[in-house]
Amino acid sequence: MGYDNNSVHEILQGAYAEGRRSLTAAEGHYVCEVYGISTPGEGLATSAEEAVAIATELGGPVVLKIVSPDILHKTEAGGVLVGLEDGEAVRNGFDRIQVKVRAYDPAAAIDGVLVQQMLAGGQEVIIGATTDPTFGKLVVFGLGGVLVEVLEDVTFRLAPVDAVQARSMLDDIAAAEVIRGARGACPVDADALADVIRRLSDLVSDFPEIREVDLNPVFARPDGATAADVRILLETGGVVQREQHSPDEIRRVMNRLMKPRAVAVIGASNEDGKIGNSVMKNLINGGYAGEIYPVNPKVEEVLGHKAYPRIGDVPGEVDVAVFTVPAKFVVGAVREVGEKGVPAAVLIPSGFAETGNVELQEELVSVAREHGVRLLGPNIFGYYYTHENLCATFCTPYGVKGGVALTSQSGGIGMAILGFSRTTRTGVSAIVGLGNKSDVDEDDLLTFFENDDNTTAIAMHLEDLKDGRAFVRAAQRTTRTKPVVVLKAGRTELGARAASSHTGALAGNDKVYDDILRQAGVVRAYELNDMLEYARGLPVLPTPQGENVVIITGAGGSGVLLSDACVLNELRLMNIPPDLDESFRRFIPPFGAAGNPIDITGGEPPSTYEATIRLSLEDPRVHALILGYWHTIVTPPMIFAELAARVVEEARAKGIDKPVVASLAGDTEVEQASEHLFDHGIVAYPYTIEKPVSVLGAKYRWARSADLI
Amino acid sequence: MGYDNNSVHEILQGAYAEGRRSLTAAEGHYVCEVYGISTPGEGLATSAEEAVAIATELGGPVVLKIVSPDILHKTEAGGVLVGLEDGEAVRNGFDRIQVKVRAYDPAAAIDGVLVQQMLAGGQEVIIGATTDPTFGKLVVFGLGGVLVEVLEDVTFRLAPVDAVQARSMLDDIAAAEVIRGARGACPVDADALADVIRRLSDLVSDFPEIREVDLNPVFARPDGATAADVRILLETGGVVQREQHSPDEIRRVMNRLMKPRAVAVIGASNEDGKIGNSVMKNLINGGYAGEIYPVNPKVEEVLGHKAYPRIGDVPGEVDVAVFTVPAKFVVGAVREVGEKGVPAAVLIPSGFAETGNVELQEELVSVAREHGVRLLGPNIFGYYYTHENLCATFCTPYGVKGGVALTSQSGGIGMAILGFSRTTRTGVSAIVGLGNKSDVDEDDLLTFFENDDNTTAIAMHLEDLKDGRAFVRAAQRTTRTKPVVVLKAGRTELGARAASSHTGALAGNDKVYDDILRQAGVVRAYELNDMLEYARGLPVLPTPQGENVVIITGAGGSGVLLSDACVLNELRLMNIPPDLDESFRRFIPPFGAAGNPIDITGGEPPSTYEATIRLSLEDPRVHALILGYWHTIVTPPMIFAELAARVVEEARAKGIDKPVVASLAGDTEVEQASEHLFDHGIVAYPYTIEKPVSVLGAKYRWARSADLI
Repeated sequence: MGYDNNSVHEILQGAYAEGRRSLTAAEGHYVCEVYGISTPGEGLATSAEEAVAIATELGGPVVLKIVSPDILHKTEAGGVLVGLEDGEAVRNGFDRIQVKVRAYDPAAAIDGVLVQQMLAGGQEVIIGATTDPTFGKLVVFGLGGVLVEVLEDVTFRLAPVDAVQARSMLDDIAAAEVIRGARGACPVDADALADVIRRLSDLVSDFPEIREVDLNPVFARPDGATAADVRILLETGGVVQREQHSPDEIRRVMNRLMKPRAVAVIGASNEDGKIGNSVMKNLINGGYAGEIYPVNPKVEEVLGHKAYPRIGDVPGEVDVAVFTVPAKFVVGAVREVGEKGVPAAVLIPSGFAETGNVELQEELVSVAREHGVRLLGPNIFGYYYTHENLCATFCTPYGVKGGVALTSQSGGIGMAILGFSRTTRTGVSAIVGLGNKSDVDEDDLLTFFENDDNTTAIAMHLEDLKDGRAFVRAAQRTTRTKPVVVLKAGRTELGARAASSHTGALAGNDKVYDDILRQAGVVRAYELNDMLEYARGLPVLPTPQGENVVIITGAGGSGVLLSDACVLNELRLMNIPPDLDESFRRFIPPFGAAGNPIDITGGEPPSTYEATIRLSLEDPRVHALILGYWHTIVTPPMIFAELAARVVEEARAKGIDKPVVASLAGDTEVEQASEHLFDHGIVAYPYTIEKPVSVLGAKYRWARSADLI
Repeated sequence: MGYDNNSVHEILQGAYAEGRRSLTAAEGHYVCEVYGISTPGEGLATSAEEAVAIATELGGPVVLKIVSPDILHKTEAGGVLVGLEDGEAVRNGFDRIQVKVRAYDPAAAIDGVLVQQMLAGGQEVIIGATTDPTFGKLVVFGLGGVLVEVLEDVTFRLAPVDAVQARSMLDDIAAAEVIRGARGACPVDADALADVIRRLSDLVSDFPEIREVDLNPVFARPDGATAADVRILLETGGVVQREQHSPDEIRRVMNRLMKPRAVAVIGASNEDGKIGNSVMKNLINGGYAGEIYPVNPKVEEVLGHKAYPRIGDVPGEVDVAVFTVPAKFVVGAVREVGEKGVPAAVLIPSGFAETGNVELQEELVSVAREHGVRLLGPNIFGYYYTHENLCATFCTPYGVKGGVALTSQSGGIGMAILGFSRTTRTGVSAIVGLGNKSDVDEDDLLTFFENDDNTTAIAMHLEDLKDGRAFVRAAQRTTRTKPVVVLKAGRTELGARAASSHTGALAGNDKVYDDILRQAGVVRAYELNDMLEYARGLPVLPTPQGENVVIITGAGGSGVLLSDACVLNELRLMNIPPDLDESFRRFIPPFGAAGNPIDITGGEPPSTYEATIRLSLEDPRVHALILGYWHTIVTPPMIFAELAARVVEEARAKGIDKPVVASLAGDTEVEQASEHLFDHGIVAYPYTIEKPVSVLGAKYRWARSADLI
């Protein structure tokens, strides 16, 4: 980066050598200077004369601050004076501070008085860096005062940030308008502020031992930004590095896990109700075409498949071993699996960290690592990979093949995924339980799904991330081409407490997750049903080619609610050009409202819906379409659904593929109509205005983050 | 109120007489004084000596401000000086202002210089009053500076407010912590602030001709509050009074409308597909037991009922006339209906204001008023009152009797209400279309439903309110005993624009609606599906007797998400007392988590659910219960549903009636299980965590507003 790292390194070493865990103000200023962050001019004075000389050189009003290792709260000790305008004031001030500090603490060692250029005017902001247990080094930006203290109006980014990312932080706080010059005030120098953020992010990235930095306040002016106060804290412990697998390594094992040629079931059983029996049945009934090897020393065969006493006895190569034995037998069996050269173990059993048995899980991980076995689980329902007809789970088979891969940290949520998918006939590529995440976690899965041609979207429920950085790296790669939806549980303080008692995982501050997930290109879902509906709808919708959304509705009332929903989902209603407006008006009654929403009015026949939908699809300036259907005798639900599906399909045949969603208001026939529409690539719902718009909004959020529009 | 109204009246009259639409600063201060709102001491000086004398009397630093009818922007003109500490400074300041203002505008008439006590320290807040087109006089409260200007962190109340309402405003802004003394700062005198709000609300209530008041800033100190600047604007037009019906009058007509002994159908027809035919069929097939009189000059009878050429020919008394004739015939027929003495006309036809034909609607209203006929519509699907088997609509009959009355301004939303109710078998008392609201509107309906024993909850979709005050009055009465849910469309600026093009109604600022609806005790729904689910769920749940909510879950993952949902829905998780915690622990595995959520863990048999649910119901310290079910082989969905329903019913038999809601995570059997639970008084949903909690949250919001907990 062209920074003089050596000198900073020396300062940090010096502090550590003295047993300090923070830098002095002077050291902080020096470090800032090295990294090109502007600080006020200053000098240390040990006499009143020196103070006056320094003040004269600095010019303008100055601040005096006591410098003493023994005085923690300078202001309280009377050790700070501001706004001293001339030599006389500085001289008196120097003496006054000495007297006051002596009175406050007669024993305090005094190094001198810092004479500092006084900054004023401009907007006070806070720029900082912190070390998050999940994500590591983060930079923070916010406005000063009540906004940050009471409203917590701040934004986070993973460090290091580039200039564009740093600049985006300024727009990401609620009070961003202040930076842009609210109410006619002069806008501040946004580039200079972004530059401070970027340089600070370089500093903490270069020196992991810097735990925390506060530049507070930074004075942002129309022509620059200066950090008035610098506080740098150091790590007390060592900086731990987590074991990393390369993406290629991960993909090699994950490919064998998800597309195995042979699966062994450790603990396979003929006894109804046993998990080892359910897994065997599901593998067989699910239609898995590879080899199935039951492992059970007590029987000859399981459900028609020859059984083997031990995994070592299995003749051929095995890709996956599914464990259905009690926890106490798992470690031993994993060892044998490793000796056999099986690369992946799927651990259904519970009784590990989630029940407090942390030691057993640690032993498990260590044995697996030693033998080169990657672990999925323990404490999971298993996993599905539909395109291989693979149902390695104790639940029930699921066979609707499609584009979305779903994963969950919790078994309960996994069961909800299964039930929801089944009832909505969602096309799924994979459903994976992650449970205790002793080894394989979300970034391993993303690394596989990223390159899996059968997967076009990913939806994940998670309570924590073992390695936030690895997740962000994997997500940033994956979201370039496929939407990734995340439902992060424990997002409120109370929720986070429950997460803690459940998994022992430290839940991060939710605002951190919010910002960093967005930085990673992830679409965040805020409730389970949203995650499920996004999973169902996103693969159905084509990627929009631009921001122009048009609403066509038969009920003005729906139009109003659809407009509300567009604003809330950050969709931009197209400003209809006059020629297009005129074209629409040709089809709708004179009292209908063109503009946008286009209100064709309630009494219209199918032909009006058809003409206006076709017009919207065929006009290249329109990028997405929201339909608000109103059940009438003139245009019954299925007539509407069939015509809308046909017009959209005709357009697709001509190479026009735009996202279309629909809200259906009507009697119960709208349920069947919505299904028909969904089956034909139109994301449609009955009895809700918000849901179709929110799925379209999610598609847009992803497309924007992937720079596709 | 004990205010000296006469003197204020004289000031206002004086201003009007001079053609002014605003009061001078001095007048404003005087009006404040009359209403007991503290303002800084001040005096008008016409010479430097006078200025010094006034400053001396006031004591402390002062502010000088030019007083001139020609100078609008005092600061810009150099007409303001602050912080003048002594006589010398005041004298110089007086002269300096004269010079500057002369330079700025040599022709300006100068009345003198205002010498004002300078206020400093404390927190700057804004207190104001405004006149809303929907709600009339409102008071506003917010903090000063960027919070109000950029973040619009303000709260509104209908004026006048009492001391408690005024006090509640201080807690209703996002930055409320500042008022309470954020970060160790001294809290300000909240009672004094509330007192200013209350007194200002009295002022604008006493004088409707005051259009707007700004007290900005008000300095709030630990020992009082002073309005530093007062700005009072007057109405330019007259103040219009809307025609009012007394509640008794309204109920008399509404009772005949909703529970008629005889219904006439104007335009009844034997021809399939005609609205006059559909309405006749629905009345007959719906099982309406009163008289049905078809009115049609061209036929002898309609569907077996003797037809009459004109309404005047009908022999008996008629309570309701349902119109199914084209718009152009409506006015004439309403006149005849009036002459016959029919008190209510239900106007299905469209072709009035909604198609731009405002004149026809005005004629309609005037004829109806002249003949004492109240109008429902026009431009509606009709209405249902299930407890009379009355389906006066062109849709299809609906017969699931129950407690919720639903109304909608839009026909499309009305159809969604019908379809949703049918598919969920929601118990309904009434479904009413309001359409153009030419006469009967939400407050008329509320006035009826308030006293209707068949109705236990009301849910309304609306785009605007014709008379916000009348609605609030009716809602405040109704919500004492029954929850009222409102889905207000047009809540974003874009949505509001669509509302405007649809109904010509001026949509109010959404934050105003938010605050005022809450003040009226209304539970606001923010999307259609929420309104529908609240309508379905609220009558099912008993009213909670306190704030202690307990979560029992079989899946820790659901527990975390349920906790999140509780926080977002302002539900308070009970702090489980040690003895109760111990009791729970007796039933759950040692690695389960007691506390709250109570995680009974996934592998537990039905008896664990049963024991913990019973314990929660029977302990009087627990007030509401949230169940997070996880589908397992050990406790399948219907087993869970049956046991939960049974335990709840057993408790009810013992007189223990607490609200219980459930989120079911599992395979598709959870759908049937959820229905079983709903049928037995437990609000339950599959595949969502948020929904059951949000219904419980809605019940709590209502119960709190009605002071039931």
